[in-house]
Amino acid sequence: MKMRPEKYLRYLFLPNLFELFGTERTRQILSVNPTVIPKREEAQQVLITAYCYNKETIEERKDISLQEALALKESNKIIWINVDGLRKSDVENFGARYGIHPLLQEDILSVNQRAKMDEEDEILFSLMNMLYYNEPKKSVDQEQISLVLGKNFVITFQEDLSRDVFTALRERLKLPTSKTRTKDADYLYYTLLDTIVDHYFIVMDKLGDEIEDLEEEIIRSASKRTLAYINSLRKELIVLKRTIYPVREVISGLIKSENTLLAEQNERYYKDVYDHIVQAIDLVDNYRDMLTGMQDLYLSNVNLKMNEVMKVMAIVTCLLAPATVIGGIFGMNFNVLPLTNQHFGFWIAVAAMILIPIWMLLIFKRKGWF
Amino acid sequence: MKMRPEKYLRYLFLPNLFELFGTERTRQILSVNPTVIPKREEAQQVLITAYCYNKETIEERKDISLQEALALKESNKIIWINVDGLRKSDVENFGARYGIHPLLQEDILSVNQRAKMDEEDEILFSLMNMLYYNEPKKSVDQEQISLVLGKNFVITFQEDLSRDVFTALRERLKLPTSKTRTKDADYLYYTLLDTIVDHYFIVMDKLGDEIEDLEEEIIRSASKRTLAYINSLRKELIVLKRTIYPVREVISGLIKSENTLLAEQNERYYKDVYDHIVQAIDLVDNYRDMLTGMQDLYLSNVNLKMNEVMKVMAIVTCLLAPATVIGGIFGMNFNVLPLTNQHFGFWIAVAAMILIPIWMLLIFKRKGWF
Amino acid sequence: MKMRPEKYLRYLFLPNLFELFGTERTRQILSVNPTVIPKREEAQQVLITAYCYNKETIEERKDISLQEALALKESNKIIWINVDGLRKSDVENFGARYGIHPLLQEDILSVNQRAKMDEEDEILFSLMNMLYYNEPKKSVDQEQISLVLGKNFVITFQEDLSRDVFTALRERLKLPTSKTRTKDADYLYYTLLDTIVDHYFIVMDKLGDEIEDLEEEIIRSASKRTLAYINSLRKELIVLKRTIYPVREVISGLIKSENTLLAEQNERYYKDVYDHIVQAIDLVDNYRDMLTGMQDLYLSNVNLKMNEVMKVMAIVTCLLAPATVIGGIFGMNFNVLPLTNQHFGFWIAVAAMILIPIWMLLIFKRKGWF
Amino acid sequence: MKMRPEKYLRYLFLPNLFELFGTERTRQILSVNPTVIPKREEAQQVLITAYCYNKETIEERKDISLQEALALKESNKIIWINVDGLRKSDVENFGARYGIHPLLQEDILSVNQRAKMDEEDEILFSLMNMLYYNEPKKSVDQEQISLVLGKNFVITFQEDLSRDVFTALRERLKLPTSKTRTKDADYLYYTLLDTIVDHYFIVMDKLGDEIEDLEEEIIRSASKRTLAYINSLRKELIVLKRTIYPVREVISGLIKSENTLLAEQNERYYKDVYDHIVQAIDLVDNYRDMLTGMQDLYLSNVNLKMNEVMKVMAIVTCLLAPATVIGGIFGMNFNVLPLTNQHFGFWIAVAAMILIPIWMLLIFKRKGWF
Amino acid sequence: MKMRPEKYLRYLFLPNLFELFGTERTRQILSVNPTVIPKREEAQQVLITAYCYNKETIEERKDISLQEALALKESNKIIWINVDGLRKSDVENFGARYGIHPLLQEDILSVNQRAKMDEEDEILFSLMNMLYYNEPKKSVDQEQISLVLGKNFVITFQEDLSRDVFTALRERLKLPTSKTRTKDADYLYYTLLDTIVDHYFIVMDKLGDEIEDLEEEIIRSASKRTLAYINSLRKELIVLKRTIYPVREVISGLIKSENTLLAEQNERYYKDVYDHIVQAIDLVDNYRDMLTGMQDLYLSNVNLKMNEVMKVMAIVTCLLAPATVIGGIFGMNFNVLPLTNQHFGFWIAVAAMILIPIWMLLIFKRKGWF
Ligand SMILES: [Mg+2]
Ligand SMILES: [Mg+2]
Ligand SMILES: [Mg+2]
Ligand SMILES: [Mg+2]
Ligand SMILES: [Mg+2]
Ligand SMILES: [Mg+2]
Ligand SMILES: [Mg+2]
Ligand SMILES: [Mg+2]
Ligand SMILES: [Mg+2]
Ligand SMILES: [Mg+2]
Ligand SMILES: [Mg+2]
Ligand SMILES: [Mg+2]
Ligand SMILES: [Mg+2]
Ligand SMILES: [Mg+2]
Ligand SMILES: [Mg+2]
Ligand SMILES: [Mg+2]
Ligand SMILES: [Mg+2]
Ligand SMILES: [Mg+2]
Ligand SMILES: [Mg+2]
Ligand SMILES: [Mg+2]
Ligand SMILES: [Mg+2]
Ligand SMILES: [Mg+2]
Ligand SMILES: [Mg+2]
Ligand SMILES: [Mg+2]
Ligand SMILES: [Mg+2]
Ligand SMILES: [Mg+2]
Ligand SMILES: [Mg+2]
Ligand SMILES: [Mg+2]
Ligand SMILES: [Mg+2]
Ligand SMILES: [Mg+2]
Ligand SMILES: [Mg+2]
Repeated sequence: MKMRPEKYLRYLFLPNLFELFGTERTRQILSVNPTVIPKREEAQQVLITAYCYNKETIEERKDISLQEALALKESNKIIWINVDGLRKSDVENFGARYGIHPLLQEDILSVNQRAKMDEEDEILFSLMNMLYYNEPKKSVDQEQISLVLGKNFVITFQEDLSRDVFTALRERLKLPTSKTRTKDADYLYYTLLDTIVDHYFIVMDKLGDEIEDLEEEIIRSASKRTLAYINSLRKELIVLKRTIYPVREVISGLIKSENTLLAEQNERYYKDVYDHIVQAIDLVDNYRDMLTGMQDLYLSNVNLKMNEVMKVMAIVTCLLAPATVIGGIFGMNFNVLPLTNQHFGFWIAVAAMILIPIWMLLIFKRKGWF
Repeated sequence: MKMRPEKYLRYLFLPNLFELFGTERTRQILSVNPTVIPKREEAQQVLITAYCYNKETIEERKDISLQEALALKESNKIIWINVDGLRKSDVENFGARYGIHPLLQEDILSVNQRAKMDEEDEILFSLMNMLYYNEPKKSVDQEQISLVLGKNFVITFQEDLSRDVFTALRERLKLPTSKTRTKDADYLYYTLLDTIVDHYFIVMDKLGDEIEDLEEEIIRSASKRTLAYINSLRKELIVLKRTIYPVREVISGLIKSENTLLAEQNERYYKDVYDHIVQAIDLVDNYRDMLTGMQDLYLSNVNLKMNEVMKVMAIVTCLLAPATVIGGIFGMNFNVLPLTNQHFGFWIAVAAMILIPIWMLLIFKRKGWF
Repeated sequence: MKMRPEKYLRYLFLPNLFELFGTERTRQILSVNPTVIPKREEAQQVLITAYCYNKETIEERKDISLQEALALKESNKIIWINVDGLRKSDVENFGARYGIHPLLQEDILSVNQRAKMDEEDEILFSLMNMLYYNEPKKSVDQEQISLVLGKNFVITFQEDLSRDVFTALRERLKLPTSKTRTKDADYLYYTLLDTIVDHYFIVMDKLGDEIEDLEEEIIRSASKRTLAYINSLRKELIVLKRTIYPVREVISGLIKSENTLLAEQNERYYKDVYDHIVQAIDLVDNYRDMLTGMQDLYLSNVNLKMNEVMKVMAIVTCLLAPATVIGGIFGMNFNVLPLTNQHFGFWIAVAAMILIPIWMLLIFKRKGWF
Repeated sequence: MKMRPEKYLRYLFLPNLFELFGTERTRQILSVNPTVIPKREEAQQVLITAYCYNKETIEERKDISLQEALALKESNKIIWINVDGLRKSDVENFGARYGIHPLLQEDILSVNQRAKMDEEDEILFSLMNMLYYNEPKKSVDQEQISLVLGKNFVITFQEDLSRDVFTALRERLKLPTSKTRTKDADYLYYTLLDTIVDHYFIVMDKLGDEIEDLEEEIIRSASKRTLAYINSLRKELIVLKRTIYPVREVISGLIKSENTLLAEQNERYYKDVYDHIVQAIDLVDNYRDMLTGMQDLYLSNVNLKMNEVMKVMAIVTCLLAPATVIGGIFGMNFNVLPLTNQHFGFWIAVAAMILIPIWMLLIFKRKGWF
Repeated sequence: MKMRPEKYLRYLFLPNLFELFGTERTRQILSVNPTVIPKREEAQQVLITAYCYNKETIEERKDISLQEALALKESNKIIWINVDGLRKSDVENFGARYGIHPLLQEDILSVNQRAKMDEEDEILFSLMNMLYYNEPKKSVDQEQISLVLGKNFVITFQEDLSRDVFTALRERLKLPTSKTRTKDADYLYYTLLDTIVDHYFIVMDKLGDEIEDLEEEIIRSASKRTLAYINSLRKELIVLKRTIYPVREVISGLIKSENTLLAEQNERYYKDVYDHIVQAIDLVDNYRDMLTGMQDLYLSNVNLKMNEVMKVMAIVTCLLAPATVIGGIFGMNFNVLPLTNQHFGFWIAVAAMILIPIWMLLIFKRKGWF
């Protein structure tokens, strides 16, 4: 059962017991409140980036002002505005200009929302979470993203300034030959959703590595760290499940929608995303099955070890017994003690001390205990 | 694994074992009878409060008489009558005046009803439970509330005089600019439902804190108190589930209803409440998953501790064995005892007593038991 | 953890172990055969009671003959005929006269039927089980009842002569002002169903008391009697579930039915029964959850006790070890035994026997075992 | 806990451990292949029996030739042809003559099919399994039966020559007054299905007896035989479930079918069978619940016994401890041993050996261990 | 409990512990990513085989070039092109020529897809996995296959050059009388699907043998190898489930499709495949039930063994106790030791040492421990 080298490295750098047993993660997972807006903190920094493109040209405008972003509505190109960092006033301004209903503005601003989709007169709205794998904490991070599709524009609102999953997509968009460039805003919208869903598989793959490591750990030992490890993975799978499951309804809502913003001939692209999200859900179920298997394995392993320890104790106790009894018998201070005056008496007693346990062991062996 | 200070305080003031093991709570949870009205006690005190408002003015009338409340039907403002405390005769009078069917009157009066909605010719009826977190008992309290929507009026019936979840809403209503003030009775109705559902998250958040504490408790020790704690939380989750799950049907019933009392353009507000109740249901499932995880953790922890104790016993038994045997051998009263007359005989025996256990320990070590 | 007095009384009169472990109850629950009519025993006694009433008058006719009962069909009042005790010939006669199909006659006669409803040209048929709580056996008894609704008549067939759940209803019927008196036969039919369903909650409440007692029992001790108690309650919950669940379909079948025997304006009464049966089903689920919780509690409690016993054994073994070793060493019969000739030798040995265990205990204490 | 005599007899003749642990049964249950026809063995003997009847006369023709059976299609009576033993050529001949599609012929010939129903132009096809209880092996045997209904004829194909469940039905058919005689072929078809389903309850009743015996066994002892018994019943319940569940779809398919071969007025007979199969499915669920309960009972019982053994060991160890220590102390060969020269020294030591354990026992008693 | 010889052979050649505990298999199962095409390796070798046939003639063309394959579209015979080995450029060429949408090309190229079906203007597309049983690794291998049906042609794309499940089918195709030869392309398409599904049963049968062996293993011993065996089978059942379940949707999609490529009269053949896939799904459930049963059996067996070992320890401890106490008493060095000067003193002590344990054993026997 040799470990592959890269696995061994991972094994060495396992987080320590206290980090694994962080109950703070429990708090984070259970403390969901999609409604209390007052508690929300305004983003300290907001970064608005716009892409204005058609088949011929593309213009990337980084860090533009709110006014510029609002003015883009008049553009005759396809516009993708990405807003990193959420501020109430910004969202309200966007909402007023681009036709986003106040309730949807509320959804954009309240992080911790369940994935949902909605339709307005002029826009189509989706909200879901991007997942990232947090390597040092071995946990699944999430970032809420709201995607608004209108006639010729897409607006995306992200919580976190520092990261998203669209880097490769931005590069592709700059290529004049890329499919996204040559198609309408609804194709860009599809591409964004597709990228988010595709990234779920990458995060799951990392968790899959963790489960593999855990299995290794369980087979080798069954310590409190293993227990902490199981407990920690269990929590991450809860996050995974609750993030991914509702996305299915979002995608199927888009497919069923008869909104003219979604071109009929692009429906099959959305079906492709649907295929993937269904498979992702299947996979989450497999992960849960696998982890349940691990827990049973752990418990059985602990039981088996206990069994072995008990057997050794039983053997030692049995080996000891005759010596104790015989030693006790001939250690008594009676005046008349048989054998004690005979020359080979001592050797007879010692022989009995040795032979009786051997005979007992043979019986146990036959009973199939060892 | 340091505790945050505010957590440590909570930890110190955990309820004691006997309170946790209160089987009375079991009785309360299982003793549900929505049908037996005779047993119901009439409220000792009834408090009727009315709000009469339109865009321009609002009048708060506290502790009005039944007659006044009935007379308000003729008002040309929007009326919200809140009845705290349930008396059969009052409810019958309201029913006769405001068109509430006798069966719905029965529902209002029989506490312990499952959440439901119903439609009459002139009114729309919803019934559900408000949840409160009972800090000293660490349990979830519930109070039944019936909400009647009619043309220009809303009537709410509450069991308990002393509390509800609408304090902030009342303040907002008094502001001339608040949305509720400027809209119709059905918007007030939505606001009430929304407030009730939003409060579920607050209660769940408190239970989430308990689960976090429980996890801490399990990792530190595995005593009978931990067991009582798990058992107690399990009961509260049953209450949570059975209160929250049926509310989904109520809200979706309101959305599907084609009643003219609900303005078409306000439907999306009800959909927003629906989003939240679906997320609350998801969260209840997460809580249950989490608690199941805790129980497994507890059991595994107990098993692991037992394993450790067993190992120590096995080691001590093994260390003891050679001393017992050798002491037994040379303690026998035979006339001829080898070594006993030699000068270093004693030291040879003692050396064997020490070296054999060391050798045994090395073997065990290699077998991977420690 | 004081017990309330009435609870303590119940606790003392718990059935003994052998009664609890009655496997006969298992046989009763599993031996269901709704089809084999030959095995059925004819009732030894049959009691037919009729109520003929309209708004003005009511006539109670006890123990009438079959002929009289059949002749009542011509009456121009509303007729309720209750047949206690099932005889094939009687049922066939009723069937021929009142239009009950032979297959329904079969259902009436074959006890152990699953709840069902059916519609004929002239009648509406429901079949379900009344539940009673059997106090001495702590079990749930059931009695099959078939309810036939026709134009102006209701016929009920009961297995058991000695009891039903309609006593209060009969009294109410005699009051000229009662709602049932002033309404048609379909309202009487609703009242009968409502009474049966309402009684389910009473039976469940008794089982709820048992579950509360069981919890008390588990916390106090974990004996074989506790085990028997869990096992016994588990069986009763199976009975509860299989009786109550199918009643939902019966009531919803009545609501969906377009039969003219059921007046449109009374549909809401049936919906009220439906509310209650849905809540009863929810409650059965809660009971099962609760009992699962008890089983886990029991197991954990046994484990915890074992853990404690093991610890004591480990401690005693460790305390014993030094005395055994030292006693063994100085009990050997070597000519040269160090210390033995010194005056304080004995006291040094005894001191070691006492101090070493104390030192060991301190180590264990620090390891967090006690 | 006395056993009823007939139960005691069953108890004595329980199959031995090796038969119970027959893994061959596992192979049988898991080795299902409905598709590989080549492997099928042709029946060594085929027995064709025909019943030709109308209201006036009935003719039973045993062991007729294939040609005769095919010729019967021209008869103007109602024909029931029962084919015991399956040969490819026979089935093909029947198929060609009576309009059975080659794919249905394949189904008839491939035993191990899941229950199914199908409709052709001229025939209606059902396939299911008859169940028998195998008393010596305590297992559930199954035999596939295919039932073909055509205009005026019914053909049944059975695997096994030696048995079926229709003996009583054949007797009834011969009575001129029996309902089956006076009705059409579709009523005969119903009667056959009804008989098969009714027999499921008889088989289940036998398994119910086994479960009752198992419970008795578990309460009395918890040996390896008990374990084997649980394991064996578990397998039979899998067979039961997979045989009975799909029959529901078959019957409901017949009810929903608009085929003119099934007279409208006989539909209610099929509904009666449907009632029974639904109840049978409920009962299978009850059996599984019951068996799960037994397994928990078994495990808890083993745990409880272990607990008791541990307690005795703990007690004995504790009782032993003082004697060991005191004996060790005064058995040491020091020159100066306190008390040893005193007359009552011995009795003081012995008294301590007796009193210390008694005092320890009292402490344990108070701790609630016994 | 004798083993059949062929079983014994299998038993001897069980894979060793380290192979069974291969966590690499976990990695393989969890590392599913249907989206990342860049990672995919191009096939090193591609083999295109074509069958061109009608009722009269058949031509088998092995290892043809891509150009030849594309040219076959003009043929007026029925064409089956089988492509072994997946290269992006090939699939794109086929797609362009035969009307396969780029998204479907992506599906063909991305192995690890969930089974799916899709319809285009000119083609009908299915994708699923063929299963093989890997005898040395005791695991289930899978190979993705895409099946394209067009007017007069079928194209199949396979991952793996070296194997598929169609060998027998190819032979049958060459027979002029075979049904496939005389029917249209959609019948060939059915035959391919049918063959794939039929092969699932063969693979399951092998896994069934493994489960039987596992049961044997568990009954005989309960070692770490058994544990590894359970764990390993559990993983394979996850593969089985996720491969087979989605195929049901594919087949039912084909049945529901109104595509003119599927002749109406062949629908019943697809229904036959549907029957089989439903039965396969049932069987997967049975396998999982069976394996759960095995795990419980394993755990109970370990528990039972522990119980037996504990009992022996308890007995030995008890047998030892009197000898220890009595030996201790009379081994003390008091001047005055009762009995020691009497002639039969020694024999009295030894008799007590023997008789007390016998008496204790009798008590334990009566308590029902052995
Ligand atoms: Mg809100
Ligand atoms: Mg919202
Ligand atoms: Mg971001
Ligand atoms: Mg994708
Ligand atoms: Mg990986
Ligand atoms: Mg799924
Ligand atoms: Mg255990
Ligand atoms: Mg009522
Ligand atoms: Mg009600
Ligand atoms: Mg209140
Ligand atoms: Mg809200
Ligand atoms: Mg919190
Ligand atoms: Mg949900
Ligand atoms: Mg019948
Ligand atoms: Mg019936
Ligand atoms: Mg009665
Ligand atoms: Mg009621
Ligand atoms: Mg009560
Ligand atoms: Mg429910
Ligand atoms: Mg076939
Ligand atoms: Mg078939
Ligand atoms: Mg037969
Ligand atoms: Mg029947
Ligand atoms: Mg029976
Ligand atoms: Mg069912
Ligand atoms: Mg893609
Ligand atoms: Mg795809
Ligand atoms: Mg291949
Ligand atoms: Mg097939
Ligand atoms: Mg096989
Ligand atoms: Mg199924």
